[in-house]
Amino acid sequence: MEENITLDSMAGSVMDLAMSIDTLWVLIASALVFFMQAGFALVEAGFTRQKNTVNIMTKNIIDFSLGSLLFWFIGFGLMFGSDFAGFIGKPDLFFTKGWEGGVPALAFLIFQTVFAATAATIVSGAMAERTEFKAYFFYSIAITAFIYPVSGHWVWGGGWLSQMEVPFHDFAGSTVVHSVGAWVALMGAIALGPRIGKYSGKKVNAIPGQNMTYGALGVFILWLGWFGFNPGSQLAASGSENASAISHIFVTTNLAAAAGTTSALVTSWLRFGKPALSLALNGALAGLVAITAGCDIVSPAGAVVIGLLAGVLLVFSVTFFDHVLRIDDPVGAISVHGINGAFGTLMVGLLATEGGLFYGGGAALLLSQLIGVVSVAAWAMGLGFILFKVLKATVGLRVSRRVEEEGLDIYEHGESAYN
Amino acid sequence: MEENITLDSMAGSVMDLAMSIDTLWVLIASALVFFMQAGFALVEAGFTRQKNTVNIMTKNIIDFSLGSLLFWFIGFGLMFGSDFAGFIGKPDLFFTKGWEGGVPALAFLIFQTVFAATAATIVSGAMAERTEFKAYFFYSIAITAFIYPVSGHWVWGGGWLSQMEVPFHDFAGSTVVHSVGAWVALMGAIALGPRIGKYSGKKVNAIPGQNMTYGALGVFILWLGWFGFNPGSQLAASGSENASAISHIFVTTNLAAAAGTTSALVTSWLRFGKPALSLALNGALAGLVAITAGCDIVSPAGAVVIGLLAGVLLVFSVTFFDHVLRIDDPVGAISVHGINGAFGTLMVGLLATEGGLFYGGGAALLLSQLIGVVSVAAWAMGLGFILFKVLKATVGLRVSRRVEEEGLDIYEHGESAYN
Amino acid sequence: MEENITLDSMAGSVMDLAMSIDTLWVLIASALVFFMQAGFALVEAGFTRQKNTVNIMTKNIIDFSLGSLLFWFIGFGLMFGSDFAGFIGKPDLFFTKGWEGGVPALAFLIFQTVFAATAATIVSGAMAERTEFKAYFFYSIAITAFIYPVSGHWVWGGGWLSQMEVPFHDFAGSTVVHSVGAWVALMGAIALGPRIGKYSGKKVNAIPGQNMTYGALGVFILWLGWFGFNPGSQLAASGSENASAISHIFVTTNLAAAAGTTSALVTSWLRFGKPALSLALNGALAGLVAITAGCDIVSPAGAVVIGLLAGVLLVFSVTFFDHVLRIDDPVGAISVHGINGAFGTLMVGLLATEGGLFYGGGAALLLSQLIGVVSVAAWAMGLGFILFKVLKATVGLRVSRRVEEEGLDIYEHGESAYN
Repeated sequence: MEENITLDSMAGSVMDLAMSIDTLWVLIASALVFFMQAGFALVEAGFTRQKNTVNIMTKNIIDFSLGSLLFWFIGFGLMFGSDFAGFIGKPDLFFTKGWEGGVPALAFLIFQTVFAATAATIVSGAMAERTEFKAYFFYSIAITAFIYPVSGHWVWGGGWLSQMEVPFHDFAGSTVVHSVGAWVALMGAIALGPRIGKYSGKKVNAIPGQNMTYGALGVFILWLGWFGFNPGSQLAASGSENASAISHIFVTTNLAAAAGTTSALVTSWLRFGKPALSLALNGALAGLVAITAGCDIVSPAGAVVIGLLAGVLLVFSVTFFDHVLRIDDPVGAISVHGINGAFGTLMVGLLATEGGLFYGGGAALLLSQLIGVVSVAAWAMGLGFILFKVLKATVGLRVSRRVEEEGLDIYEHGESAYN
Repeated sequence: MEENITLDSMAGSVMDLAMSIDTLWVLIASALVFFMQAGFALVEAGFTRQKNTVNIMTKNIIDFSLGSLLFWFIGFGLMFGSDFAGFIGKPDLFFTKGWEGGVPALAFLIFQTVFAATAATIVSGAMAERTEFKAYFFYSIAITAFIYPVSGHWVWGGGWLSQMEVPFHDFAGSTVVHSVGAWVALMGAIALGPRIGKYSGKKVNAIPGQNMTYGALGVFILWLGWFGFNPGSQLAASGSENASAISHIFVTTNLAAAAGTTSALVTSWLRFGKPALSLALNGALAGLVAITAGCDIVSPAGAVVIGLLAGVLLVFSVTFFDHVLRIDDPVGAISVHGINGAFGTLMVGLLATEGGLFYGGGAALLLSQLIGVVSVAAWAMGLGFILFKVLKATVGLRVSRRVEEEGLDIYEHGESAYN
Repeated sequence: MEENITLDSMAGSVMDLAMSIDTLWVLIASALVFFMQAGFALVEAGFTRQKNTVNIMTKNIIDFSLGSLLFWFIGFGLMFGSDFAGFIGKPDLFFTKGWEGGVPALAFLIFQTVFAATAATIVSGAMAERTEFKAYFFYSIAITAFIYPVSGHWVWGGGWLSQMEVPFHDFAGSTVVHSVGAWVALMGAIALGPRIGKYSGKKVNAIPGQNMTYGALGVFILWLGWFGFNPGSQLAASGSENASAISHIFVTTNLAAAAGTTSALVTSWLRFGKPALSLALNGALAGLVAITAGCDIVSPAGAVVIGLLAGVLLVFSVTFFDHVLRIDDPVGAISVHGINGAFGTLMVGLLATEGGLFYGGGAALLLSQLIGVVSVAAWAMGLGFILFKVLKATVGLRVSRRVEEEGLDIYEHGESAYN
């Protein structure tokens, strides 16, 4: 506000404030998404056994730490650098300067960093209780420095999926973040094999988690974090259009989570005779993952539909992986993030109020969604397959029988979680 | 910022930014209030026994989920729809569009949704460890779809309490939210009767909670959430008046909580010879509940007075319900939210710097406060009484002796919290 | 937005909005910093034994409560009142009104209150498991009402350290907050002596903590809170300069924490053969404490350097205090907040991009940093020494052997944490 106020100087000030509001929102959303790390750690610790808690917490804090360093060093550039052949960005090592869209580049960097770390940490749960810490350490490097940024570039960095005539729509990352993590996790769980005692002959044994309070607290924290994850992906809050958009996304996100919780609970009640907390909690997450792709362009009622279906799908998917495919995923990460990530992304093709099949938009968007889901899955599964093969052949992927039976905490870390 | 900048277009942009700031604050406050659900769940789980933890967590996540769906579907309309006879709003089913005051309607909806869910979840604690899950499920529907919205309409939706010559003043809901929950909880606790073993003859037995770390963490989370609950109720942050108001409310909220903690601790120290954590924690909540009605119009010193008295009142109220009335409220919810909600609401009549008796305002405001406290209590107790009668006669309200003794987790949910 | 819009009235509205944005940020940051109290409580409870958990939680909630009341009553005035002789501010009892810089004074008060309470609570951990609750109660009063505000005045209140030709630079309080707490803690730990069983002859016995899940959750919460602590210290968010500054600080804060975690983990791995979670967690905190002084004026790469060194320093410092000095600090608070606070403050003299030795700035800033670190340490140690002498001679500092062996919870508070 100088002495010589002119219309032009004033317009500059107003634009400056708009940018400040956008930046503030991106940063606050980043803090909320960061906190999801605590949620993931608690869910994983709660759903597994006491003897492996130190290992789980160490994995969760180190994947975020390595992810923060590496995404800054190289990942961000691969994802958002100038496009090369639709496939990858030109890296800009030790990224530090300038502006991205309407916010300081470092605000955009921190927001994208906590997203990358979310994809990374999803894998931890599916591989819990039997993975060499050393292998997890190297895996963390691979996903944040390469696997995630590349497919991320396809969708959010200007790559080929965003260049299609009807671009692939994944607003906040049902596919880009959650499914990528889950498909890598699937390869990890297969490469590892089930935990000792999980399957004996035809029998499928439940291995109960140590602490449902941790699990429930984790889910509440994740739900909270999602209020940064989804509305934060608007990357702006200034002006009535942005303010309406983020308000809309708050509501669709919350309704889908509520619907997912309710339908998973009711489904478990009808199917098993009792309302199961573990499924209600995973139902909440399923609803959240599923709404993430379309939270901006489905209606509140559409969000409820997606959430209700996600909760039911979750219950059946968990059983399918556990009993039919016999893939041991201690926390249900593949069903929550993979199956429901894909499901939610496809639902955009049906329920988007602009372009969705049920809203008169034809099948073009649905087709784009299918292409995106399949191609990202192929990438993540392919790279995951190679990664775990290499780790198995080099540092080793699975701990010895004795370590697994007596717990990773003592053998791998020299510390017990509870005394 | 078009090429043709005019004073008028600029004024429009400035108003747009003001609205964005307001929206951002309402949404962030909503996220903080949402997180209170985790706080309530932890306090309830911490103050009760291990065998009922799964039940408690299931209740806490489902009351929020059902509440989110139903308040959107019908509750919001009953509370904020156009006034009918001062009693109820005309519902606007599946509420989705437009603007409310200065913010997008969906921002207002999410903020009001998390408030409704707060009232709902208060009941859970007082009815802990002996309630049929099915009954709780239906109760959750009743409170968010009808009981809470109606009395809420009287105060915040343009109903009769807001139409009095000196309107009832309950800024953020000491009465509208907290007491409503607590009076329904009182009816629930009476309808259920005490837990097995709580009272044997003349003797009152303490049933110690499983985990004070959960309890303390829960209170810290609730205190944090209150920084959304109270200052968020300003529903605006733009302009120096709003900025000053929310700053003021932050300070009065925090001082009352600090004073409540301190006085409850010191009271317990003087009375029982030892400084009790459980009472200090509930003292914090008592201070928070009590300041909620007048956080905007009492001075910081007034907030300290309210907090100090709330902490003392809490200690005596807990003993009174437990030893004299012999109503079994495992977490002290009735004393925290009911007695202190009423107390704080009445204190507005004395300490409001505009209109309070001690500030030369006469007794008119105090009388309005009394009318509000009594009429809302009558409504909530009346409806609560009928509700639990009906539930008792239909789905059943209390679990069998065996289920209660061995724990609700296994019998009602088929899961244990700890393994 | 009146009917008569003029350039001047418009400029006023724009300034008003800028101020609102700043206020909103200061308040949200205050909420985040408040939440650090939960983090500190969980870290302390997690790293100590079950029999003292009620005591720890009571200390943590009461130091915040007393701190809130006393800092408002007197501390704030001593710290920020008009300067007297470079040493102390003129108190403004029951501070309530006006504006500070660009925000309402009460917004500034609440932000400074949560900072004061951070310094206070650091002491709790180092004195855990053997301190009389009464002594802790009086200690809480002393630090927030006097010790912290005085040295705080030197740096942030216009006192002598800010008046030097090259002013001492401590942006968010590596020294002002963290080291002050730690040096008082050091005096407390010395005055108390080690816990029973910690040192037997030449032998140093590890006393394992009860629950690493609490410890890890606490660190995640602290990391989250630091996104308020450091960027909030900008005290503004409006305009491109502030928006860039807080974005920069988010990134340097996160990178230093990530680097501290990684280097502490790797150091423990190389040194002890296994990657230790307890050291990784404290490494995160070490990185956060160390970056706090210079988060605004070191580059992202500089932040990584500081974090990496902080993590290594942490591992060696913990061993040094435990094995060489034989000072029993159950949670490592002195190494985390004291040694790394001093280290990070000194690093500003080397790595500040303006004025740092490695950036061609000569040794002047480094010298100022040294003066600040030493003088604040002398103040805090001196006052801490006197304080604990006085408490020892009056109310008593250490509990009896029997209380310590059987646990403070039952004897001091009459409650157990776990049942």
